[in-house]
Amino acid sequence: MGVTIAIDCMGGDHGPVVTVPAALSFLRSHPDANAILVGREEALQAFLGSAPSEFGARLRLHPASEVVTMDDPPAIAMRTKKDSSMRVAIDLVKSGAASAAVSAGNTGALMAISRFVLKTLPGIDRPAIASVLPSMKGHTYVLDLGANVDCSAEHLLQFGIMGAMLVAAVEHEERPRVGLLNIGEEAIKGNEVVKEAAELLRNSGLNFCGNVEGDDIYKGSADVVVCDGFVGNVALKTSEGLAQMLGAFLRQEFSRSWLTKLMALVALPVLKRFKRRVDHRLYNGAPLLGLRGVVLKSHGSADAMAFENALARAAEAASNRLIERIGERMASMKEVNA
Amino acid sequence: MGVTIAIDCMGGDHGPVVTVPAALSFLRSHPDANAILVGREEALQAFLGSAPSEFGARLRLHPASEVVTMDDPPAIAMRTKKDSSMRVAIDLVKSGAASAAVSAGNTGALMAISRFVLKTLPGIDRPAIASVLPSMKGHTYVLDLGANVDCSAEHLLQFGIMGAMLVAAVEHEERPRVGLLNIGEEAIKGNEVVKEAAELLRNSGLNFCGNVEGDDIYKGSADVVVCDGFVGNVALKTSEGLAQMLGAFLRQEFSRSWLTKLMALVALPVLKRFKRRVDHRLYNGAPLLGLRGVVLKSHGSADAMAFENALARAAEAASNRLIERIGERMASMKEVNA
Repeated sequence: MGVTIAIDCMGGDHGPVVTVPAALSFLRSHPDANAILVGREEALQAFLGSAPSEFGARLRLHPASEVVTMDDPPAIAMRTKKDSSMRVAIDLVKSGAASAAVSAGNTGALMAISRFVLKTLPGIDRPAIASVLPSMKGHTYVLDLGANVDCSAEHLLQFGIMGAMLVAAVEHEERPRVGLLNIGEEAIKGNEVVKEAAELLRNSGLNFCGNVEGDDIYKGSADVVVCDGFVGNVALKTSEGLAQMLGAFLRQEFSRSWLTKLMALVALPVLKRFKRRVDHRLYNGAPLLGLRGVVLKSHGSADAMAFENALARAAEAASNRLIERIGERMASMKEVNA
Repeated sequence: MGVTIAIDCMGGDHGPVVTVPAALSFLRSHPDANAILVGREEALQAFLGSAPSEFGARLRLHPASEVVTMDDPPAIAMRTKKDSSMRVAIDLVKSGAASAAVSAGNTGALMAISRFVLKTLPGIDRPAIASVLPSMKGHTYVLDLGANVDCSAEHLLQFGIMGAMLVAAVEHEERPRVGLLNIGEEAIKGNEVVKEAAELLRNSGLNFCGNVEGDDIYKGSADVVVCDGFVGNVALKTSEGLAQMLGAFLRQEFSRSWLTKLMALVALPVLKRFKRRVDHRLYNGAPLLGLRGVVLKSHGSADAMAFENALARAAEAASNRLIERIGERMASMKEVNA
């Protein structure tokens, strides 16, 4: 019996119009997996078509009457919307009915509810959000992406452990290289927390490859890049902005005249291939790490292809024992330090 | 009589082979400006050709027997190399013989020596390094880029003032929009220092446009983006890495087969134009702000075109009273608070 993904079908900018078709496509491409669609039944039914007969028991609906909006403060979403599709999806992970939950909803609410319902693993102070980015050599996993600002060295160590176990589970790389994000300037003075974290990581038994700089994320100098959530979020958003600007400039240059438009037409197959290669939809699905259950955050504006990628990533994490790996590693760290 | 730029001709990865031709080209394109080439005379002479007769008194050599290397610790460079080309160039600014100094040498040493020789302006605790980046709407100035980690809210306010005065001087934009770099996640909790800095900036009399996120740097949502040096350095380096990766991917896709190579040939004029538009050499020359004198840091690996751009930016800053503007603004802030 394969994994079962609980899907918050109401979350995100688009809701069921995106999440339900993505779920059905996921079931088609993952014949061992099951899905529980969580949300307002009539809203979900509208997009199911012949799916119930196609998938039988592999596809279930689970009603939830409320929806967490993008503007709901996390505390309000958690305390007052106990029958939200987000909350119910996470409850299904807690009860063991699902192996993982995926939501494109409000990040703060998802983190708060996941933490409240599932709790953190022993030894983990704060859950983190990880993201995967393309690199010259494959992929780089970066965490934290915004859940934690003002981190201690100990937190950064925990992020390193969680990130390494994530890569072990989903990339089947048993000893991933873990780098610590720092600045290379000889200038003035370094950040004390980062210096201390380097010491902890060096003695952690992880495959720690030392300090890395911002450009190393895309060079692929490490499989996992550890940083606090403020820095990680800035790095991610800055990258998004730069990629958008470069894409816009490229389009502008190719649409300058009828001649350049003709050139674009000729080069189209290459430009498309290039675009596919860096398509951010391929990288959708950011795991919330450090919880006693697999939860993934999809981008709020994800389309069906992007959302399906998040579902696939959740299935991969759940079937490769992500939570158990992190738990075991934390337990062995404790023994070493005891 | 125009501005006079003191040039550390020995600094950077390449030294006089790059800096001297850049200086001569700068003198040609800036008929009002003067240059003082600082370094080992025989090394400089080798690249001068007929320049002494071409430029007459506009071009002077100033001997300096030592060189600060890229590996010299800042304190050592400052204390033991008192006749280095870097130090002598800054001494020329201090004595008033030059209006600005430009160096492609070791950033930490340049900052330490500049601070020691020139001192900071009244009200400025720490000098910052600013960089200009391309945006969808023109340029965005970002500071700090690595001189200061662990900044207080007061420091961030000072960066905002210095950045605004820089843009006023070099872009002739009297009320530039100042944004504070933050993360947009509703998650958990914000950074306390950033929240406090937002308050200070709101009451500063600057044209403060509130919090911005990483992608706003390239969207051009603000003219000046303020952040601490750790975050700024990561944002800059991450951008460099992403741009390199995207460039490499584009080249790979176009060189995949004889057919794609043919397509590249057809599209070459457009690709070249695109490349020129985002050429990082156009953005070379990062001012060290908050000092009682204009000092610009060129990228260590700058070629002659890039180094000349740094010289041109230094001339622009000096002739538009950058230091006086920052000083006046700091003085008026003091009156308001008194």
